[in-house]
Amino acid sequence: MDDKRILSEVSALLDDLTKPKGSLGRLEDYASRLAVIQGRVPPRVRRKAAFVLAGDHGVVSRGVSLYPKEVTAQMFANIMAGGAGINVLSRACGFDVFVVDAGVDADLPDYPSGGADGKPRYVPMKAVRGTKDFTVEPAFTENEFLQCLHNGQKLADLAVREGYDIVALGDMGIGNTTSAAAVLAGYGFDPDLVVDRGTGIDDAALDRKRALITEAVAARGPYPTPESVGAAFAGPEIATAAGVILGLKGKGVACMLDGFPITAGAVIAWKIDPSVTDYLFAGHLSRVKGHRPVLEALGLEPVVSLDMRLGEGTGAVIGGFIVELGARIAGEMSRFSDAAVSKASGEEKDF
Amino acid sequence: MDDKRILSEVSALLDDLTKPKGSLGRLEDYASRLAVIQGRVPPRVRRKAAFVLAGDHGVVSRGVSLYPKEVTAQMFANIMAGGAGINVLSRACGFDVFVVDAGVDADLPDYPSGGADGKPRYVPMKAVRGTKDFTVEPAFTENEFLQCLHNGQKLADLAVREGYDIVALGDMGIGNTTSAAAVLAGYGFDPDLVVDRGTGIDDAALDRKRALITEAVAARGPYPTPESVGAAFAGPEIATAAGVILGLKGKGVACMLDGFPITAGAVIAWKIDPSVTDYLFAGHLSRVKGHRPVLEALGLEPVVSLDMRLGEGTGAVIGGFIVELGARIAGEMSRFSDAAVSKASGEEKDF
Repeated sequence: MDDKRILSEVSALLDDLTKPKGSLGRLEDYASRLAVIQGRVPPRVRRKAAFVLAGDHGVVSRGVSLYPKEVTAQMFANIMAGGAGINVLSRACGFDVFVVDAGVDADLPDYPSGGADGKPRYVPMKAVRGTKDFTVEPAFTENEFLQCLHNGQKLADLAVREGYDIVALGDMGIGNTTSAAAVLAGYGFDPDLVVDRGTGIDDAALDRKRALITEAVAARGPYPTPESVGAAFAGPEIATAAGVILGLKGKGVACMLDGFPITAGAVIAWKIDPSVTDYLFAGHLSRVKGHRPVLEALGLEPVVSLDMRLGEGTGAVIGGFIVELGARIAGEMSRFSDAAVSKASGEEKDF
Repeated sequence: MDDKRILSEVSALLDDLTKPKGSLGRLEDYASRLAVIQGRVPPRVRRKAAFVLAGDHGVVSRGVSLYPKEVTAQMFANIMAGGAGINVLSRACGFDVFVVDAGVDADLPDYPSGGADGKPRYVPMKAVRGTKDFTVEPAFTENEFLQCLHNGQKLADLAVREGYDIVALGDMGIGNTTSAAAVLAGYGFDPDLVVDRGTGIDDAALDRKRALITEAVAARGPYPTPESVGAAFAGPEIATAAGVILGLKGKGVACMLDGFPITAGAVIAWKIDPSVTDYLFAGHLSRVKGHRPVLEALGLEPVVSLDMRLGEGTGAVIGGFIVELGARIAGEMSRFSDAAVSKASGEEKDF
């Protein structure tokens, strides 16, 4: 069915729900977007998945983070054990957690595949053992980068196969806001807009970080393709996120972005195929300074704005829960045509 | 335990959770506020209640709404049947629904008391059969108004007795944004700020509505007490909301406000006892124009802003779900002191 017909059907349904026209605001927009994505009226949400993509970043050797690289593997273990922020919020918001080794620079333990009793599922797909330091050479070889995109495609296929209607993408990787900023600078975003101070960095350190990125963008070019920017600067989780997004095209699945690093991955996908924004939602607006201008470039309005900057998909699952509410009102509310409730002649609301 | 000690305990706990310090943003603030309200670290949320307060408004005879008054009783039936927006969103967000006849101008059917199998509970406490038209006489007698406050107190007691840690307040009553605007104008809010155009009203009608309210505020005065403003202009649901809020004082229960009419009820409570804001949360920012300045006066920041204006508590339960997430992260996340995750020396976040 074409999008126009779906839109007109879902709009007729929303106006028949027992409420003043338009009074559920953005929940109604989410219902409409889900209907178009799925080609179904009303839309449905059977299962929701959170893919937590983990990887390491060569640029960490330049001292861009206060955390040592080892924390990536430690947090991986913490998420597998169910104790991280994303575990708590996924349980609350109804998401199944998949913990993906997209390119951690460590030999991870032989985790069980998980999935039973709400336990996180382990997905080993290490494309690299961390990236190279992009300030001295490209982060990925072309093949490594394509492998990340391919791994993302496999995750998208898994989501489709298992009946997930909403996929939330989260990132975990020490140093990844720096890689994300470099990716965006590589695509022409103003470094002043996308290089973040974080909470602990002083003016001199901020200048140094910005200079590192600006010099690297000049040194790694030219960039004949959108992929060449990704290969030069992305991290494993950022590139894999781009692959998931590209892989979900035309599959009827909505994709929730998390914060700054995942949104940089979305920009890679969007530069490769601008139509991906049709099924992307910005789960939240992060406190990371560069997030807002990048969402604006993508034309995405964040669902919530809770001043968070944890990553892991924590903002994506909260936003995904609220987007799902759109499907639920469309599918579950009673209708004027069935219930004994008088409809207003106009659109004024007063109940 | 005093508030300062609770705050320092909850802050130490939040900083020990396996995440960069402060990175869960407002969820951490919600955890702190709940801890202080409850006097417990970590805070807990055992059960959540949505009180949907319904009442009729004499001012409807002046044609301020496009809906006939009969819709209040029809929507009451719709909520009892489980098909309204508040039912769908309460199921999704984990709230038990209580449908309260605070003053509907109709003989309601003999509803079952409900409560089993997730069915809404019926609470008959009709203080009046609708209010009088405040443009010609006070909406309530003093006794009727006090009865509404008393009924609200009984609802608060019920919430405490049954172990509800979060109470969401919702309103349902044709004409109630007009009564809410009059209450606020009676307390000195600028009518230009609080009289809303709605969606169907033209300039002339807006001017008429504002003039009606301005004249009524002049005619019904003077107002020797905060209660006298409530008695002059409130509706049954607005006055009962004020009673619930006052009744929750010191009970360890957080109270989520919905949109404009409930917030007007909160202003009545606040004028009677300014300390009520200690346990109030603004569930959402409504599309009703006057909502924002009133929340600002109360010093409350809305949890979400989804362009909704349905009422019934729909914004309060979504906001309440997110506030609960604060308690969940505080209670369920693993801690640096237990997990094998390295803590940063500073506060920079990069995972």
